[in-house]
Amino acid sequence: MDMTKRRLRQDEQRFINEIASLLMPWGLAPSSGRVYGYLMLCQTPASVDQIATALEMSRAGAWSAARALEAFGHINRHGAPGSKLALFASSDNFAAPLSKQTALLGNIATVLQTCAAETASGAAAARLKQRARFYLALRQAMDSTMQELTAQQARKRA
Amino acid sequence: MDMTKRRLRQDEQRFINEIASLLMPWGLAPSSGRVYGYLMLCQTPASVDQIATALEMSRAGAWSAARALEAFGHINRHGAPGSKLALFASSDNFAAPLSKQTALLGNIATVLQTCAAETASGAAAARLKQRARFYLALRQAMDSTMQELTAQQARKRA
Repeated sequence: MDMTKRRLRQDEQRFINEIASLLMPWGLAPSSGRVYGYLMLCQTPASVDQIATALEMSRAGAWSAARALEAFGHINRHGAPGSKLALFASSDNFAAPLSKQTALLGNIATVLQTCAAETASGAAAARLKQRARFYLALRQAMDSTMQELTAQQARKRA
Repeated sequence: MDMTKRRLRQDEQRFINEIASLLMPWGLAPSSGRVYGYLMLCQTPASVDQIATALEMSRAGAWSAARALEAFGHINRHGAPGSKLALFASSDNFAAPLSKQTALLGNIATVLQTCAAETASGAAAARLKQRARFYLALRQAMDSTMQELTAQQARKRA
């Protein structure tokens, strides 16, 4: 039986709660984390009603959790053919949400470099430059690894 | 004049606010982010009183912000020689706070793999395995880059 039509088993509930608590440090609210975990388990895209029923949430709560996940690039919205009903599925583009993290590393590095050049002095300026170099190198490594992994995934699918 | 003994200039205040707002997605409270930015500008370790005065915070607020930063590995505590006074300085171990992020990637991957093996089925299980591989490869790339950068820093200092 399709899991969108039945009650969640205990092991499914445990996975959903584990994922939600692990993703809190990424800035995901617990309700968004639970919706994300649920969608990872679904074989096919799920409607807000299905999500709300499965997770025993309000429809409004499920909507706002799904919208937040969509904004972060964690899930995608699929239109049901011939219907206005929105369906959601976890995204296979695992790099998308993390790209925002690597962009952040770049933004921090820029602020540090500007501060080292214009605001800080002496040992503090030297340390800020070193810190900026560290974040930029890490950003570069993450971006190129994610590009490589995404390309590998695409080749496997082709 | 040592910046711990004078009022902050406008460009210093701007840097402190920019860093605080950029670090919020890393889970840092604005007050912790401001203390972190301030310590990045300081040439020498600063006391809680110095921090509180410079940032116009309460002493208790400065303490709790500094403790949170210390717990994350963003700053280090230095004892003033011959005194019980705690002094804080931004850490040069830039990798330490990020190591918790890479450990998190590993923990998420473990939960995904267990779920793929024991809970999920069909296409969902295959996608969970693929997601776990992605996070593990990214973790590996981040850890090895950070190790390399830390070793480079140590060589430069030596």
